[in-house]
Amino acid sequence: MKNDQLLLEQTIRNIKPVDAKLIAGAYERLDSLTKPKRSLGLLEEIAARLVAISGQEKTRVTGRRVCVFVGDHDVVREGVSAYPPEVTLLMVKNFIAGRAAINVLARRANAEVEIIDVGMANDPGGLPGLLGLNVRRGAGNISKGPAMTLAEVAAAVGVGIIRANDATDKNISILATGDMGIGNTTPAAALYSAYLGLPAADLVGPGTGLDSRGVRKKVEIVGRALAVNKDLCHTPLGTLAALGGLEIAGICGLCLGAAARSRPVAVDGFISGAGALAAMRICPAVKDYLFFAHVSAEHGHKKFFESEKLRPIVNLDMRLGEGTGAVIAMQIMDDALAIYNEMATFAEAGIAPGA
Amino acid sequence: MKNDQLLLEQTIRNIKPVDAKLIAGAYERLDSLTKPKRSLGLLEEIAARLVAISGQEKTRVTGRRVCVFVGDHDVVREGVSAYPPEVTLLMVKNFIAGRAAINVLARRANAEVEIIDVGMANDPGGLPGLLGLNVRRGAGNISKGPAMTLAEVAAAVGVGIIRANDATDKNISILATGDMGIGNTTPAAALYSAYLGLPAADLVGPGTGLDSRGVRKKVEIVGRALAVNKDLCHTPLGTLAALGGLEIAGICGLCLGAAARSRPVAVDGFISGAGALAAMRICPAVKDYLFFAHVSAEHGHKKFFESEKLRPIVNLDMRLGEGTGAVIAMQIMDDALAIYNEMATFAEAGIAPGA
Repeated sequence: MKNDQLLLEQTIRNIKPVDAKLIAGAYERLDSLTKPKRSLGLLEEIAARLVAISGQEKTRVTGRRVCVFVGDHDVVREGVSAYPPEVTLLMVKNFIAGRAAINVLARRANAEVEIIDVGMANDPGGLPGLLGLNVRRGAGNISKGPAMTLAEVAAAVGVGIIRANDATDKNISILATGDMGIGNTTPAAALYSAYLGLPAADLVGPGTGLDSRGVRKKVEIVGRALAVNKDLCHTPLGTLAALGGLEIAGICGLCLGAAARSRPVAVDGFISGAGALAAMRICPAVKDYLFFAHVSAEHGHKKFFESEKLRPIVNLDMRLGEGTGAVIAMQIMDDALAIYNEMATFAEAGIAPGA
Repeated sequence: MKNDQLLLEQTIRNIKPVDAKLIAGAYERLDSLTKPKRSLGLLEEIAARLVAISGQEKTRVTGRRVCVFVGDHDVVREGVSAYPPEVTLLMVKNFIAGRAAINVLARRANAEVEIIDVGMANDPGGLPGLLGLNVRRGAGNISKGPAMTLAEVAAAVGVGIIRANDATDKNISILATGDMGIGNTTPAAALYSAYLGLPAADLVGPGTGLDSRGVRKKVEIVGRALAVNKDLCHTPLGTLAALGGLEIAGICGLCLGAAARSRPVAVDGFISGAGALAAMRICPAVKDYLFFAHVSAEHGHKKFFESEKLRPIVNLDMRLGEGTGAVIAMQIMDDALAIYNEMATFAEAGIAPGA
């Protein structure tokens, strides 16, 4: 516990806001390229931030990795998911076989896939291809008490920080978050509600496939979780412990760890957004390193973007998780850097810059 | 003229709506894959349509090409553009050198770039790397009369049809549209206004960089073009001839030609959308083959999507043209097909399909 706490504090101290001068410098180059000024819109914003984060004029992607954190949730006993919890392990096996959506899309993005057991309910044994970093066998039923203790949340955040460090040490220059955990839209909705100060009904959706009666029940469960854990939610980390999940804490840690090492992170959808929001509440400067990949079809996600005045890179009505949206956005981040690095300037093309 | 007209008629006759049964069949496979049903949103819609268009269970991308049609516009004399018309030729040279935004992004999408002079005002001579298929040296000033004659528009549409046939013959399985032509947001706005029945002010924007006074003047010019050419706008092709441009007609032809050979087309932004809309008015079934890549920051483009009840694949606030948005969308179309082809089914993974 003590070391986990120290690692977290150390990590937070190393997160510096991205230098506005470096962003301005990147725009200077972008504005010199053969296109009407700022006509590549969001692509230019992405490029400028990536260049500023790297701090290097020649910003190259040297490696990409999506970290998929896996955890279970005892709140599924309340009937909040369309799938039984056994599916978590079956999906982990599917990831390892390279046949899930995240594997397919990560191959397209030229990204490694890392699967991390940080909170699976059942011991998967020594599954080759699964990183066994389990902190607790499933989060507690948040409708009856906290998901984790403070020691457990610090450990799960630590797992994410250590994965970010590992990636950075191995020359990965861009990270993405992913999640797997049957039932995890419920704790994610609870976290958004607590951090954003919005009612549960604004943030709860059908998840993997609840009907409207199921959604109403889920709103009630989230409301109960917020009430039961009220006294534990006085700090950002306490809130994450009380209402979150181990995979969400891992994602939070990955965001913090990557920012501390000046690496950009593509943040996936509804679940990853909750982990990223926890990281932003723990250390606001982390935001400069986060690229929110997509807005999920899970309707609470829109509220998050509105509330935090953020903009997703794409909107494809996806709601799968696993990091699938993040690796699609990673491709667009690569596009943006290619524009920055490869286009001719007006001077090179012998054209007057125009308006 | 006569042959151009016959080619167009023949092409239209060969455009068949995509078989709804094939789309349903594609969804059957998509619903069997290891993900909550329809949880990949737009990606699944794209995959289903691409599979149905190909008519083959194993749909593979065998080649990608973006066709960039180049044309000039005498209406620039009215001061509707932030750039002088000489920039068209300089940008063509930049394309040929492989240093423009479209080259960079097409490389990322693994797509060939084809540059076609269909309507450049100045004879570029025998520039290697430029397809010299010029129909007319620049479109007429639409604020004073028609852009082209009916014979010229049929020829320019024919250029696009022939480029679609060439691509198909060379095993290109997915096409994209692009444009270059200083001043071409003006004829595009005029075409949208005529085809959609919306006032010019709804469709005119700053283009490459006009200020608000410039935009007001442009609205007036478009209004004048609509009034002057009113009697020529009784058929979709007549409207295209009167208000369009040669590159816009080429794009229209590419859409028609690709659809006639059952090839999908990623349609770029504001200019390409006007060409695609002309194709849809000439032959409504063409729509089944079109994938609208992005909504441009040029504000009239939103009106087009609303009016035609269409949805763009991405929204990145781009307004560059050249096909830049289309090749980004091409990558997402590739992602969608990879999902269809590579994911495990529930049966393969030993998981019950859930909700």
